[in-house]
Amino acid sequence: MCELLAMSANTPTDLCFSFTGLTRRGGETGPHKDGWGVAFYEGKGVRAFHEPEASANSRIAEVVQTHPIKSEVAICHIRQANVGAVCLANTHPFMRELWGRYWVFAHNGQLQGFRAAPGFYEAVGDTDSEALFCDLLNHLRRDGNRDAPVAEVVDLLVRLSAGYASQGVFNLLLSNGDWLFTYCTTKMASITRRAPFGPARLKDADVTVDFEAETTPNDIVSVIVTEPLTADERWDIYQPGEWRLWRKGEVVMQGLAPPAAGESL
Amino acid sequence: MCELLAMSANTPTDLCFSFTGLTRRGGETGPHKDGWGVAFYEGKGVRAFHEPEASANSRIAEVVQTHPIKSEVAICHIRQANVGAVCLANTHPFMRELWGRYWVFAHNGQLQGFRAAPGFYEAVGDTDSEALFCDLLNHLRRDGNRDAPVAEVVDLLVRLSAGYASQGVFNLLLSNGDWLFTYCTTKMASITRRAPFGPARLKDADVTVDFEAETTPNDIVSVIVTEPLTADERWDIYQPGEWRLWRKGEVVMQGLAPPAAGESL
Repeated sequence: MCELLAMSANTPTDLCFSFTGLTRRGGETGPHKDGWGVAFYEGKGVRAFHEPEASANSRIAEVVQTHPIKSEVAICHIRQANVGAVCLANTHPFMRELWGRYWVFAHNGQLQGFRAAPGFYEAVGDTDSEALFCDLLNHLRRDGNRDAPVAEVVDLLVRLSAGYASQGVFNLLLSNGDWLFTYCTTKMASITRRAPFGPARLKDADVTVDFEAETTPNDIVSVIVTEPLTADERWDIYQPGEWRLWRKGEVVMQGLAPPAAGESL
Repeated sequence: MCELLAMSANTPTDLCFSFTGLTRRGGETGPHKDGWGVAFYEGKGVRAFHEPEASANSRIAEVVQTHPIKSEVAICHIRQANVGAVCLANTHPFMRELWGRYWVFAHNGQLQGFRAAPGFYEAVGDTDSEALFCDLLNHLRRDGNRDAPVAEVVDLLVRLSAGYASQGVFNLLLSNGDWLFTYCTTKMASITRRAPFGPARLKDADVTVDFEAETTPNDIVSVIVTEPLTADERWDIYQPGEWRLWRKGEVVMQGLAPPAAGESL
């Protein structure tokens, strides 16, 4: 399996603190040593870093931990391989362009034996996750509308996600740079930090941050993870089937997916 | 304008020496300070680094200079903006998936007022270069065949390149991870290093390398650039209209494009 981390913020914000906690779980405090990757949106552009090795010992991960890269949406993944070899092509997050925007996807879970119907987007590696991503984008391109209100796109994403979730574990992070869609089948939690900010301490490293000193009173920054990163804050746990759409640090839409049984698309 | 660098090798090889020379030209020995990017293939996977800032002062570029990332094909670009703002979305190299492989593209030159016909691939940023890349991939997808012999794909690439070159300056690096296609309208040079290896000294930094100590006798490593990186080696200068297809460090096909006049696709 693996672990996921995402950020949504109303002002460009770095991910150093959370990334430091998560990447310790890649070979040090956790077993997710088969690769790591992170994508930071900056406007419509994306900076991505991927390595098919343990993040806990990575020089490049160390630079990302200590060199503040400011972003309003970021998606991160550390991998413990189940489906697909340990190699760069199988390292999340995955990215494709749709409707003139980069879409970034990371997945925790497993849909054993999932086969995507042929379509425009094709997997480069051999993980079930990348096949799912391509299938999802093929559905969006076929059934979605680039000019549709976001609620329509989200409705389609929820139905697609519920369909995938009926076949296995499907904890999802997906962004087009404007919003961040999150879907939980087994584990996901979020925290929204806003004024008055306080300190927080990582579970996985002897690191404390005083958000008060790092922020302005208007900042709203949310972090979404599969396993909470701090022990001294209250994380909001998703229910199975729950989805939340984040934008500028806040939940702008949310709901519980309809029961998967009989789901067809 | 900008500068280009690519590598083709028959064994995974790092780009540290050449990358160090090129990135000095990004704000130190040259004016190309509006961004830099590099993509390294590792099998079918790609590690990419992009920054919309000067490479000469970049902490991330410094890590790429000193942390050997081994690859058989790499493509690098430093930017001096003309068309399109200085921002991450406009930073080369660009990447898209076609036929289950990542394609990586970097361009030197300018095709003023180029407008791509609508197609599946769309630019995310607003450079003429990314529009060209999307147009090229749309043609490949429409007119090419994923199972065709490489000579057929190359024939199409040469005709497309000649068409673009008839509209402006089009020095091109393009790879699908298997081969590297290079096309020159105004400036491009290459060097192939093989046993017996010797030393080389960068023009742009006080750095000398002894390739003998870094290689095995079977290694073949070629570097392709818009401006030679060393003064003490003999670079092979492309003619205008010349194209070369590189694979595992060697030219496997080459030619002179037909005159652009009357070119139609």
